[in-house]
Amino acid sequence: MIDKKHLKVFTDIVGKDNIYDDKAHMIAYSYDATRTRFEPDAVIFPRHEQDVQDILKYCNQEQIIITPRGAGSGFTGGALPANGGIILAMEKHMNKILEIDTENMVAVVQPGVLNMDLQKHVEELGLFYPPDPASEEYSTLGGNVSENAGGMRAAKYGITKDYVMALRAVRTNGDIIRAGKRTIKDVAGYNVAGMLIASEGTLAVLTELTLKLIPKPKYKKTYMSVFPSVDNAMNAVFKSLSSGANPVAMEFLDKLVIQALIEKLGVNLPQDAGGVLVGDVDGNVPEEIDFQLQTLEQSFKENGAKEFRIAKDEEEAKELWYARRNASQSITIFGNKKLNEDISVPRSMLPKALEEIYAIGDKYGFKIPCFGHAGDGNIHVNVMIDISQIEEGHKAIEEIFQLVVDMGGTLSGEHGIGTSKAPFMNIAFSNEELQLFRDIKRAFDPNNILNPAKMGLTTVK
Amino acid sequence: MIDKKHLKVFTDIVGKDNIYDDKAHMIAYSYDATRTRFEPDAVIFPRHEQDVQDILKYCNQEQIIITPRGAGSGFTGGALPANGGIILAMEKHMNKILEIDTENMVAVVQPGVLNMDLQKHVEELGLFYPPDPASEEYSTLGGNVSENAGGMRAAKYGITKDYVMALRAVRTNGDIIRAGKRTIKDVAGYNVAGMLIASEGTLAVLTELTLKLIPKPKYKKTYMSVFPSVDNAMNAVFKSLSSGANPVAMEFLDKLVIQALIEKLGVNLPQDAGGVLVGDVDGNVPEEIDFQLQTLEQSFKENGAKEFRIAKDEEEAKELWYARRNASQSITIFGNKKLNEDISVPRSMLPKALEEIYAIGDKYGFKIPCFGHAGDGNIHVNVMIDISQIEEGHKAIEEIFQLVVDMGGTLSGEHGIGTSKAPFMNIAFSNEELQLFRDIKRAFDPNNILNPAKMGLTTVK
Repeated sequence: MIDKKHLKVFTDIVGKDNIYDDKAHMIAYSYDATRTRFEPDAVIFPRHEQDVQDILKYCNQEQIIITPRGAGSGFTGGALPANGGIILAMEKHMNKILEIDTENMVAVVQPGVLNMDLQKHVEELGLFYPPDPASEEYSTLGGNVSENAGGMRAAKYGITKDYVMALRAVRTNGDIIRAGKRTIKDVAGYNVAGMLIASEGTLAVLTELTLKLIPKPKYKKTYMSVFPSVDNAMNAVFKSLSSGANPVAMEFLDKLVIQALIEKLGVNLPQDAGGVLVGDVDGNVPEEIDFQLQTLEQSFKENGAKEFRIAKDEEEAKELWYARRNASQSITIFGNKKLNEDISVPRSMLPKALEEIYAIGDKYGFKIPCFGHAGDGNIHVNVMIDISQIEEGHKAIEEIFQLVVDMGGTLSGEHGIGTSKAPFMNIAFSNEELQLFRDIKRAFDPNNILNPAKMGLTTVK
Repeated sequence: MIDKKHLKVFTDIVGKDNIYDDKAHMIAYSYDATRTRFEPDAVIFPRHEQDVQDILKYCNQEQIIITPRGAGSGFTGGALPANGGIILAMEKHMNKILEIDTENMVAVVQPGVLNMDLQKHVEELGLFYPPDPASEEYSTLGGNVSENAGGMRAAKYGITKDYVMALRAVRTNGDIIRAGKRTIKDVAGYNVAGMLIASEGTLAVLTELTLKLIPKPKYKKTYMSVFPSVDNAMNAVFKSLSSGANPVAMEFLDKLVIQALIEKLGVNLPQDAGGVLVGDVDGNVPEEIDFQLQTLEQSFKENGAKEFRIAKDEEEAKELWYARRNASQSITIFGNKKLNEDISVPRSMLPKALEEIYAIGDKYGFKIPCFGHAGDGNIHVNVMIDISQIEEGHKAIEEIFQLVVDMGGTLSGEHGIGTSKAPFMNIAFSNEELQLFRDIKRAFDPNNILNPAKMGLTTVK
């Protein structure tokens, strides 16, 4: 429960229409996509940067915990008020596209703008914002930056951090930080913008994002191949890429996912298929498309693909993509509870990583269907369990993280750490590295009021 | 003068062949490309990471200042021991290419490897390391990362930071930090690698760099156009880019540089030329090259270019590049002292920025020939003075920085801040932002022993 005197101060700052403290709203704002629940004491909707400044200064003085929140669509609890306190919700007011600078190919937005709204807006101008997390329809750009969201197009176009040119943010002491510039080169001062990306709202509150746009490629085509085994498919991934192919996306479905798609949705794929790769290529000239497709086809066939299908039109492209788009919902046939982790390994380690993940599944008697962004080494691993098996499920997850880290991979390719992966941080980082993270956190936020208890830096109380 | 007891400890660590403290060597290591002089008290050549750890721990305990040094080719004093102490020189031992992982397209190198040595090595394997600072023949990759070096190919391929996947570094307390992974996606923990890039060796000492490589493009062609005015050329830059052209490089020479090239080197350019753009385009298929050249030609001609020359072969390409390659040495006809600054502005501001820079030159009676990386908004501004005019020269520089920052630009596109631009940091950053930089510095290096007095964070004693 928050002290009434604090509520009065917040109400004076933002007005009574921009603050909630009733039970129903506290429950509504206690969730994100993890389905873990942490109730806040109040939810505040700042109208502008000045509100953010005033609220942070007061909270810093009174040691009130703050958690910034975009759409609450994160998979690891980044926007959850794990230690209570107030939520600073950007969705209501700080959700404007402020400027599209077509000459310098730059967008300036507030943190509450939805990813897809920016994509659509700039595509009408012949421009392109590549980062496309699966949540693109409902996640905010502020959330995308805070978690360094990835997506399918990362194989060719990189991830959110590759499109952040500059950030405005407010420190807990109320100081406004302008980090970065609307220039391609800028090496003056420390790379504070780089540090704020993926910091899960623990260092400062973002108030304005300057994002890089690129010209929209003129041509695009969709391809798909079926492989006799997972191993074949995984080898085809890194061999095609190291032989010069540069597809926009190269998505993978494993044998279990294929089985689920056939059983649950009647998808037309061969019963004996061991793996599928599907994706797009793009370019400025049709010949570039041909070059990409030929390079992929050659590598795929050398690695066991029986056919290499190319969509003739948009409708066929949708058909080829249908299986990938429905992978997540189809695999529920293997268990009523899904422990969904997004690991990332160097691409050449994919065959070995999957082999060992399946072995862990066999040991525990779990099905572990895997799919995702093979083109960039980022795979969504789904440990399917009955709800009664949650403890063994978590043990399996821990083993998976350990093997991924041993292979030079990471706990999270795109979902972040938040609260849900916090217990595994000591698998990936030494005590010295975790100490450095704590030192950085203290440098930005000495009172530890900003989204604490994330990334395993301090404990959830 | 360094205490003999410290020298004894350092000698015990690295051996007597790996430490200098004689006057001649102190003078030799007192310079970089700024030609400012700061003599160290000793120069130590660590053999491996363990040496770096041992030295840092001892220096931290004894409060001895350390400055890491690559080739000493920086333009802003980043590698100079501005407050004395010891230099940690990476050139002698920590200069090995440790691994080229062709499957994941990654290079692992020690910080003392020369940029060009990596470029040549990977090109033999059909791979490509794009960052190409003008110092590529003699600057080290550790220095490139520490200053976030740019280069001509940044217009298409970005800068050093875009190729850093992971770093190993040692903190002043001796802790080893592994930051980043050999994966495209990695969002676990703070982006420490991003923070170390461009930190000018002030936060930690780099011991190993994992760098991204890409497939080498198959085709390349060189173009050049002459424009009637600087304004025409600058408009052609950002209009061609925002209409979809994506050249590898788009380099600019202004009217004064052209005049100097004709007078000093007899270069064959029209006497009345107001500006030149020269660069390369590349691609996987010849049609992509044609698309790029056509897009450039159309924009250039719409903006006043009389002709658009395309080199037929390597020899003609060299001819077209000759003027740009010799810009720097030709402009000495305008003054015996050159104050060389690298500013960067949003590309659409280039015409206005140059107009105002020339007006500052007129006010002071200085010629200010400008050339450089117009394709990414980064221009080398050369205030040519007689050595007696140094004070007015610095005033002119300060005015240039102020107008660049007012236009949304930066003090440094690629050279860094070091000691030479430190006096101008308060033009670009608020007191609150400088305080954040100091807080970050303290978080990494509480005793302020690592390359202090850079970036204007503390004063040169």
